[in-house]
Amino acid sequence: MTQNIDDLLPEGLEDRLPQSARAAARIEASILHVLDSTGYDRVRPPLVEFEAGQAQRMAGEATRGQFRFTDPASLRTLALRSDMTVQIGRIAATGLADAPRPLRLCYAGQVARIKGDQLDPRRESLQVGAELVGTDTAAAAAEIVQLAIASLEAVGATGISVDFTLPDLVDTLAKAELPLDPSQVEEVRRNLDAKDAAGLRKAGGEAYLPLLYAAGPLEDALRRLDEVDAGGVLDSRMDGLRMIAAQLGDRARVTLDPSERHGFEYQTWFGFTIYVDGLRGALGRGGTYRIGGTDEAATGFSLYPEDFVEAVKADEPARDALFLPPGHDAARAQELRGQGWRTVAALDAADEGRALGCTHVLRDGQPVAY
Amino acid sequence: MTQNIDDLLPEGLEDRLPQSARAAARIEASILHVLDSTGYDRVRPPLVEFEAGQAQRMAGEATRGQFRFTDPASLRTLALRSDMTVQIGRIAATGLADAPRPLRLCYAGQVARIKGDQLDPRRESLQVGAELVGTDTAAAAAEIVQLAIASLEAVGATGISVDFTLPDLVDTLAKAELPLDPSQVEEVRRNLDAKDAAGLRKAGGEAYLPLLYAAGPLEDALRRLDEVDAGGVLDSRMDGLRMIAAQLGDRARVTLDPSERHGFEYQTWFGFTIYVDGLRGALGRGGTYRIGGTDEAATGFSLYPEDFVEAVKADEPARDALFLPPGHDAARAQELRGQGWRTVAALDAADEGRALGCTHVLRDGQPVAY
Repeated sequence: MTQNIDDLLPEGLEDRLPQSARAAARIEASILHVLDSTGYDRVRPPLVEFEAGQAQRMAGEATRGQFRFTDPASLRTLALRSDMTVQIGRIAATGLADAPRPLRLCYAGQVARIKGDQLDPRRESLQVGAELVGTDTAAAAAEIVQLAIASLEAVGATGISVDFTLPDLVDTLAKAELPLDPSQVEEVRRNLDAKDAAGLRKAGGEAYLPLLYAAGPLEDALRRLDEVDAGGVLDSRMDGLRMIAAQLGDRARVTLDPSERHGFEYQTWFGFTIYVDGLRGALGRGGTYRIGGTDEAATGFSLYPEDFVEAVKADEPARDALFLPPGHDAARAQELRGQGWRTVAALDAADEGRALGCTHVLRDGQPVAY
Repeated sequence: MTQNIDDLLPEGLEDRLPQSARAAARIEASILHVLDSTGYDRVRPPLVEFEAGQAQRMAGEATRGQFRFTDPASLRTLALRSDMTVQIGRIAATGLADAPRPLRLCYAGQVARIKGDQLDPRRESLQVGAELVGTDTAAAAAEIVQLAIASLEAVGATGISVDFTLPDLVDTLAKAELPLDPSQVEEVRRNLDAKDAAGLRKAGGEAYLPLLYAAGPLEDALRRLDEVDAGGVLDSRMDGLRMIAAQLGDRARVTLDPSERHGFEYQTWFGFTIYVDGLRGALGRGGTYRIGGTDEAATGFSLYPEDFVEAVKADEPARDALFLPPGHDAARAQELRGQGWRTVAALDAADEGRALGCTHVLRDGQPVAY
């Protein structure tokens, strides 16, 4: 066998070999089953779309991270999808514009980006998620958060924690409780997101300093947030968070980092990040948003289970396999497959079942353990 | 809802809406189940690879049909995959170079190409297939043809027919039975493939004229082929075809077009195309080949079930769905999902089950038909 430069894969792009592919397939199927059984219909958008259409729905910036190329048919720029959420929004706004609301859609597929980052060097990953289109109420958010957790429970994840955030917190406070000049808002937001107290003061955001310390277990964090919000403009949001958390019971630890914005640039009042024990990075995120172009309210979540797949692949149960020797009865083999046996047929006399990973051999029409 | 140019999809690229996505998911899962139960391990190659690596394994030409772009990380050209077979060959030659042979691998995923053609304007399709690496005997070919047919049977296809071909027929005859100057071979091959009798004569291939009329039901075609092959250089191939066909029994109509080359440029002694009643185009193809780079023998098939999905999507069985009114018992709903119910929960008092497509409503903890 030769091994040369052309056998290598580009940085951040990988093959899933059988063990990993099997874990990924099981995880994808289990999550899709949860979503389907909760009324979410699967849709399948294409791998590639016009860049302009995606840019419009991604608020511009994000398409810079996409693989882009010219379409010889239209001479317009195409982009390989980097986020299926955007595509689901387009489907809701076009092909399913007339479907009754709330519209429940789910999806699973590969997405790619031109650059990995320090936390995750991958440039391709599986994205699985659900979108609830036509509503962004606390009840919608509660359904979506529960669905994300049920999805992880279904694949055997343990120690689930959810970190809530309020993506438009600064905008809301700046209009009422803690007035800011519109020119200051972006700077205050950025410094809060960076947890930079000095920067926050410099930006004229002293009043926002307590928010830096308002992160933590939900009830503690809400208490501190309440102190900042003397006028109560956040009351309905805080009630919403309590309602979502109450419905979770003890299925997940819940924390709140009210001013976390990173990854939630396009969310409206509610965002969440989801973690499981044993994995450093987030497994997914979600929240409320408005669909680009139509401005329809929506709530959804996406999971990126790559790290989880790698963490659990070694635990995939071993499987029996039945070797079918040369001259075996094909009808009997078919019958045994129908009973759940996995078979491996000899193609010539030199093939040997154990060497091919088989646990059993067919003798006189019966599977016999090696 | 707005509808503008950015809502459109590029030519040849489409969304699968729920009915179609559901049929596609069922078909993909059914085929993968057949492949898995026959000992084929799934692998998942990436969407994107270096163009040069793919070109080496695709014998060059085909990468012209791929979406290509520069990798900002390596500054080399990447290509979006257009044929997963090439990727499986790479995996067999690299990550699974040391796995025992014969090595059985399967795959399913989206592939894309820059241009559709008259027969099929699609630029993206689902490709599902299996590769048997390390062997290209008649026994290997028989397993692969049967597997392709079993895959179609599993998704409910009827009226399956298989058209065999002998891709290296001209090369074989030219070396012995019907000598040709090496400079004539390509021209003779092209004219045979185009069924062009005048062109064939002009290219000095008079002796090959009978091959133009040797297509048809397997036994008839073999008889005519035998007349051309007085010296018997094709005997082992003809025995192979008979053996493959004998194992199929009456599961498929079998024909032979011995000189058909289109689509089989990279195959060695055996190729086949598979059709089902009611669809104009081929549903898939396969055959024996050598893996680019290592020259290892292999046999495989690929199905492209897009047209089939569209043909059967309306037959997907209707499904019950249970509406969960406001204030329903969440634990009871979970229990019913565990029993196989698909639920749709009310998010506010205005939600109405029938309008959301539900067939049943939860009343006093029991599903009641509307």
